[in-house]
Amino acid sequence: MEGKVEQELGSQNHHHHNHPCVEISMEIHKVETPPKRSSLQKLKNRLKETFFPDDPLRQFKGQSAKQKWLLGFQYIFPVLQWGPHYDLNLLKSDVVSGLTIASLAIPQGISYAKLANLPPIVGLYSSFVPPLVYAVLGSSKDLAVGPVSIASLLMGSMLRQEVSPAQDPLLFLQLAFTSTFFAGLFQASLGFLRLGFIIDFLSKATLIGFMAGAAIIVSLQQLKALLGITHFTKEMGLVPVMSSVFHNTKEWSWQTILMGFCFLVFLLVTRHISMKKPKLFWVSAGAPLLSVVVSTLFVFAFKAQHHGISVIGKLEQGLNPPSWNMLHFHGSHMGLVLKTGLITGIISLTEGIAVGRTFAALKNYQVDGNKEMIAIGVMNVVGSTTSCYITTGAFSRSAVNHNAGAKTAVSNIIMAVTVMVTLLFLMPLFQYTPNLVLGAIIVTAVIGLVDIPAAYQIWKVDKFDFVVMLCAFFGVIFISVQEGLALAVGISIFKMVLQMTRPKTVVLGNIPGTDIFRNRHQYKDAVPVPGFLILSIQAPINFANSNYLNDRILRWIQDYEEEEEENIKMHSSLRFVVLDLAAVSAIDTNGVTFVQELRRVLEKKGVELVLVNPVGEVMEKLKKADGTHDLLQPNVLFLTVGEAVSSLFSSMKGVSSSHV
Amino acid sequence: MEGKVEQELGSQNHHHHNHPCVEISMEIHKVETPPKRSSLQKLKNRLKETFFPDDPLRQFKGQSAKQKWLLGFQYIFPVLQWGPHYDLNLLKSDVVSGLTIASLAIPQGISYAKLANLPPIVGLYSSFVPPLVYAVLGSSKDLAVGPVSIASLLMGSMLRQEVSPAQDPLLFLQLAFTSTFFAGLFQASLGFLRLGFIIDFLSKATLIGFMAGAAIIVSLQQLKALLGITHFTKEMGLVPVMSSVFHNTKEWSWQTILMGFCFLVFLLVTRHISMKKPKLFWVSAGAPLLSVVVSTLFVFAFKAQHHGISVIGKLEQGLNPPSWNMLHFHGSHMGLVLKTGLITGIISLTEGIAVGRTFAALKNYQVDGNKEMIAIGVMNVVGSTTSCYITTGAFSRSAVNHNAGAKTAVSNIIMAVTVMVTLLFLMPLFQYTPNLVLGAIIVTAVIGLVDIPAAYQIWKVDKFDFVVMLCAFFGVIFISVQEGLALAVGISIFKMVLQMTRPKTVVLGNIPGTDIFRNRHQYKDAVPVPGFLILSIQAPINFANSNYLNDRILRWIQDYEEEEEENIKMHSSLRFVVLDLAAVSAIDTNGVTFVQELRRVLEKKGVELVLVNPVGEVMEKLKKADGTHDLLQPNVLFLTVGEAVSSLFSSMKGVSSSHV
Repeated sequence: MEGKVEQELGSQNHHHHNHPCVEISMEIHKVETPPKRSSLQKLKNRLKETFFPDDPLRQFKGQSAKQKWLLGFQYIFPVLQWGPHYDLNLLKSDVVSGLTIASLAIPQGISYAKLANLPPIVGLYSSFVPPLVYAVLGSSKDLAVGPVSIASLLMGSMLRQEVSPAQDPLLFLQLAFTSTFFAGLFQASLGFLRLGFIIDFLSKATLIGFMAGAAIIVSLQQLKALLGITHFTKEMGLVPVMSSVFHNTKEWSWQTILMGFCFLVFLLVTRHISMKKPKLFWVSAGAPLLSVVVSTLFVFAFKAQHHGISVIGKLEQGLNPPSWNMLHFHGSHMGLVLKTGLITGIISLTEGIAVGRTFAALKNYQVDGNKEMIAIGVMNVVGSTTSCYITTGAFSRSAVNHNAGAKTAVSNIIMAVTVMVTLLFLMPLFQYTPNLVLGAIIVTAVIGLVDIPAAYQIWKVDKFDFVVMLCAFFGVIFISVQEGLALAVGISIFKMVLQMTRPKTVVLGNIPGTDIFRNRHQYKDAVPVPGFLILSIQAPINFANSNYLNDRILRWIQDYEEEEEENIKMHSSLRFVVLDLAAVSAIDTNGVTFVQELRRVLEKKGVELVLVNPVGEVMEKLKKADGTHDLLQPNVLFLTVGEAVSSLFSSMKGVSSSHV
Repeated sequence: MEGKVEQELGSQNHHHHNHPCVEISMEIHKVETPPKRSSLQKLKNRLKETFFPDDPLRQFKGQSAKQKWLLGFQYIFPVLQWGPHYDLNLLKSDVVSGLTIASLAIPQGISYAKLANLPPIVGLYSSFVPPLVYAVLGSSKDLAVGPVSIASLLMGSMLRQEVSPAQDPLLFLQLAFTSTFFAGLFQASLGFLRLGFIIDFLSKATLIGFMAGAAIIVSLQQLKALLGITHFTKEMGLVPVMSSVFHNTKEWSWQTILMGFCFLVFLLVTRHISMKKPKLFWVSAGAPLLSVVVSTLFVFAFKAQHHGISVIGKLEQGLNPPSWNMLHFHGSHMGLVLKTGLITGIISLTEGIAVGRTFAALKNYQVDGNKEMIAIGVMNVVGSTTSCYITTGAFSRSAVNHNAGAKTAVSNIIMAVTVMVTLLFLMPLFQYTPNLVLGAIIVTAVIGLVDIPAAYQIWKVDKFDFVVMLCAFFGVIFISVQEGLALAVGISIFKMVLQMTRPKTVVLGNIPGTDIFRNRHQYKDAVPVPGFLILSIQAPINFANSNYLNDRILRWIQDYEEEEEENIKMHSSLRFVVLDLAAVSAIDTNGVTFVQELRRVLEKKGVELVLVNPVGEVMEKLKKADGTHDLLQPNVLFLTVGEAVSSLFSSMKGVSSSHV
């Protein structure tokens, strides 16, 4: 029997170099339906996979009630987990890293607050309270919490659409706090409702393009400080900023430019050193504070503020004042405030979670995304009532924290205490700090967001992702920060939907000497089986693609028939269309109708439709829809393509020999 | 060798009833990369699959230039294809069916125009010019063209949002023609740009829910005519209509109700007869015209118009006047007109294409969706310049056409000629036609859109689709026609995206006696292989799901380890995670990073990641991204799960025996 089929296959295949030889396993295996589950069970399972893919309650299974309470508290307050085991050695490491990030946090805090059009001291307030909250609630050991450049830029630029920070600073501040409140509320809700996967829609390509664009926008804004221009545009885009710069050339101050250039070069060189040798992290970590100190002394000594160098000026002193009375929950700016909260909330969440995951992977511990969202959200809600604006885990500062040897969230506490000391006693020292040094600090911080190697990698791997990246980049630079982001996300989702609308169908052939069937395009050895068209569909079949699949399969059949006409010798007209459904993970009512219709159409052509290896759900639905079970008869339903071909080939032989 | 492995597998598996026996084929097959193609070729291919899945230019291949021109003309004007072969026999069939659908088209045309708040005669105009245009351009042999209920309802209700048809009838008419123009332009562009797949996003479930909801809304509107109410609400929803009906009970006219009830029952009975016996199609096809004639005579004879029965009144006479001077391309209502054109265009297109496809499948010929769209679009553009409002292929009338034996589009010409005769000579006869009979005709026509068996079938097959259907249905009834539709489409797409975000991963086991591996949940026989976790991922891996997959796979590993702890006897800790990538049809940069990260994380646990059967694109991208090709070493990349397991199992045995 086996020999005969092989002969038959061989004799019909003179025009091919390789003779296919389908091994016949005499045993044909049945396709099974999975055990029955009620719709409710299915729904439950679906909801679990959607909202609890990481099964956070696993650790509670089989524990005593007391233990469950303890674990529950530890789950909410991770400090209870590591706190009891804390010792002097850990503290030593944390003090070093805490002081290091504080030296970075103080100048950056002041700079980023200015980027958000807020009073500089708000940046320091925001480096005091939120790190303390995070130390109690957060589960990352490396995250350094505080204001970040992109969220600051976004908040500043969005709120400025309706309120001028120069003309109405108090209202602007109130709106900033209110936006922060909503951002926090939104972040915490995402985590609490287990909707954290929403930030997954910001793909790597989107983020790289967006970050690079935002870095350029932020750097452009620093031209004001670095060139000493006083009448600077209020807009953000590349075009208005550049035209503003070159229309005000007479405002350029050579003293500012010279001094700014020197500090910028100094900061970039220290950054470069630390990047080359991660052990020298303290070089770039200490440089900003050193620059502030040196430049302030310089201005103070030479009275440079009278020679065209603008300085921060007098700052308030003291700890965060309460600000809950400054939150607005009604009024004309509510729409803007909600939108700003939403967008800055998502962006800062994305950064915080990504940073947390990166360092967790390096140190081989787990970070629960949804729980981190709650921690970051609560931190921002608390922050908004204590004069802080939006904060999150900052990438650059966390890297320094990690390199400096941070062991636990205590490094955040050390940093907060240092900032507190600054707020209480050192604020007058910043009076003569020149704005140009803040600009240079910001440029140095954001320049790392332009990740050329990553962009090149994306170009190499996936051209479409590269296009998405470019859209985000140019969208941010030429349109606006938030619209560029929306554009890139839209295109990413559009690609996904398009992929679903036009799924791949590939023709399979037999790999000689085996019963394996593979894509004939990929495996040049694979040979067709005369009389069979074997197709693999590689996507769920649903309303969006069933018409396409119909067209495409009919085209494959036409291709087969044309090929056949060209090779008269083949003399085996199409008898079976075999659909390998292994990769069809789901089907809907349109999909079921498509399969039924396809069977009917093929039948009219005298061709039989054979299904192979449907997965459980597909099997169930075909069964339910198909009263007569015509699609699921044992002679047209097989477990593997090999079994289908060998079984049908022998039956075909029977027919053709009786005809001869 | 084979025996040893089987023994080894067996001895480690005491706790299972079935001993797995992986057949070792000594030959291990190489995973191949598809032949190289440039990015341009890939783009070309992608575009072809997206826009030309049916390869409409296939017939032009290898033809002479002259032949190509002829085929080209025939492609644009299908009449050139069937025209030359037209004969008397075909004409006989077409005359019968043409007269039959004319008898339906005349009363329905008048009724649907009233549904759209347009003068009744516009409904007849729209049954004259468009069928003639379609006869030349259309490729369906069964489509009966004219106004349809849902598009009429939509246009009437949307335009009424801004302009009152009672107070400003001329402007309303102008806007209706302009909307029709844009609908046609939009339809033709969709076809021309090969974007026809957009209508695929209206899934079967959405359409069934939407149609049923719209039928109820349309029927509710007929309560005005059937109850004789004069002060009827202008709104569409169930709630306002019912409250309007019961707040105006004193306006109810018993004469109207009685007469309306009689005709409604008569029409429903004839409809029922034709449905039971399709050969008696003429019963329901002739009934509307008969009702119009009888009711008109009745009113005329008994002067019933003076006894509370409202009649159509005087109608104009003559053929379609030109209306291009009535099209508005600027002004305050442009937004509404564009929106109305877009929505009515898509909805009527959906109906027309679906009807065309249905009857083409019945008669076994092909209808090119994109070309049909151009035909319907041109028909509406031409219509809008000759006093016609939106038209398409109507389902009920096409069914009658088909049953009456229509052979070609000539039946549409016969119908148009009959309507022309009516327009020229018979219009005064309609003066005494009572509105109630038009209401009864509409109710009878739309009642068939409520498809209970189809809804039950959806419930049986796919619960989620059923929810989508309910959303469309209740959305249309309680919110508004267009918003209900948008809601259902939104939910359908959301489901698709969610499916992508949470792809299925299943654990495979070996089916005893074979080298086949299948889902252990579906195939109860399938047994695990100790030391191996074999997973199949059933979706493209991309930004939206790579985080989820990471969580999910780590959870599978935890499950494995827990199971292992429970079965100490098994004493085979996890050594290999085998990912079957056969169903991963695509991957993006996030996906590639996920695979690389997973390998790194597993390595730290002392577990090796093994990839099986990646498709061409995935193989290429992994290769490009992975400088060192760690992922694609021959010892961790296999063609089938069977080969992977047998090969690795023997290597594992080597290691463990050297330890012992």
